[in-house]
Amino acid sequence: MSPPNPTTPRRQVSTEARGRGRRPGGPDTRGEILAAARKSFADKGFGRTTIRGVAGDADVDPALVHHYFGSKDDLFLAALDIPVDPRALVPAIFDGGVAGAGERLLRLFLSVWDDPRTRLPLIALVRSSLVQEAPESLLQQGILRMILEPLRAALPAEEADRRVQLVISQMTGLVMTRYLLALEPLASMPPEDLVAWVAPTLQRYLDGPLP
Amino acid sequence: MSPPNPTTPRRQVSTEARGRGRRPGGPDTRGEILAAARKSFADKGFGRTTIRGVAGDADVDPALVHHYFGSKDDLFLAALDIPVDPRALVPAIFDGGVAGAGERLLRLFLSVWDDPRTRLPLIALVRSSLVQEAPESLLQQGILRMILEPLRAALPAEEADRRVQLVISQMTGLVMTRYLLALEPLASMPPEDLVAWVAPTLQRYLDGPLP
Repeated sequence: MSPPNPTTPRRQVSTEARGRGRRPGGPDTRGEILAAARKSFADKGFGRTTIRGVAGDADVDPALVHHYFGSKDDLFLAALDIPVDPRALVPAIFDGGVAGAGERLLRLFLSVWDDPRTRLPLIALVRSSLVQEAPESLLQQGILRMILEPLRAALPAEEADRRVQLVISQMTGLVMTRYLLALEPLASMPPEDLVAWVAPTLQRYLDGPLP
Repeated sequence: MSPPNPTTPRRQVSTEARGRGRRPGGPDTRGEILAAARKSFADKGFGRTTIRGVAGDADVDPALVHHYFGSKDDLFLAALDIPVDPRALVPAIFDGGVAGAGERLLRLFLSVWDDPRTRLPLIALVRSSLVQEAPESLLQQGILRMILEPLRAALPAEEADRRVQLVISQMTGLVMTRYLLALEPLASMPPEDLVAWVAPTLQRYLDGPLP
């Protein structure tokens, strides 16, 4: 990484005028930003990774990072390399109201995790987060936050935080048993059977009567 | 570790006649066996750890390992250093039948995990098992097996394997969220509240109607 050079104007996406200072965008600049982002998220965690820091590591202007990737959340999802965006998918679960949301949430969860393109990066993320002692893990601040917040917002206030966490507890349990440990017969259970057994649990946590 | 010496008769617990060959039992022999057992379970996993191998590593007769620790399962629990024995506790949950077993199981689970003397060794075990790619983890072969088998045996045959795994999925989800990730408000939720919310889930998985 080169130090910032205050005497040279920062270059934007223009591919003209290669000289000293930050590099302009080029054919592999996007990949280099992504590599720097992955390293930063892995080394520093989510909270201490910044667009500015990633830009510095990739030796480009921060505006170029925004140009290619958008927000820090966008950059994180790109670095994670999963083909879905929980920020769009989770709120859609509640488009039809809370009724049936347990089943819709579980179907979404299973479609994401049963797909190896999503499962493999997510398993790596869960594994790395579980060996860290630090509470500010990528799993919590990066992904769980993107799922918890829209769930929380869709529920009536009473006990909403507990309800959301109980939902997450059953879903992370499926992550552990079906995907990480691959316990049989759960790992091979058809999604429809799993929905029939587990959706009522999620639905009760979402809107069942207080116990 | 000394190689086995076929020309010297193996010594038993007797403290006489210190010479070449396997060491007799001494004041710290128990601790040395335990250290050898911990290393073997960690390095080789559960399946490939044997009483004979641990005895060889500790340079004692296998009979001495049996004398101090009993079976391989006993040795594993001693190596894990948790103050409870799942082989005694889990079957007792079904002494009153399947009715109410979900609540009794959850109360036992919470009492074990809320106690730091048990929680800390178990968290270490779960963490180490989740980073291994190998399916034959200590978590599965060592502990889960001791819990799954009596649960399985206590249930009527129909769908018993699935029912047990669903129970385990909710409980491992609590391990993840309440104990490993310490997500709030779940991590601070009073056990009674958690029982009120989650015991019905376990009970439905144990003996609810097939979906």
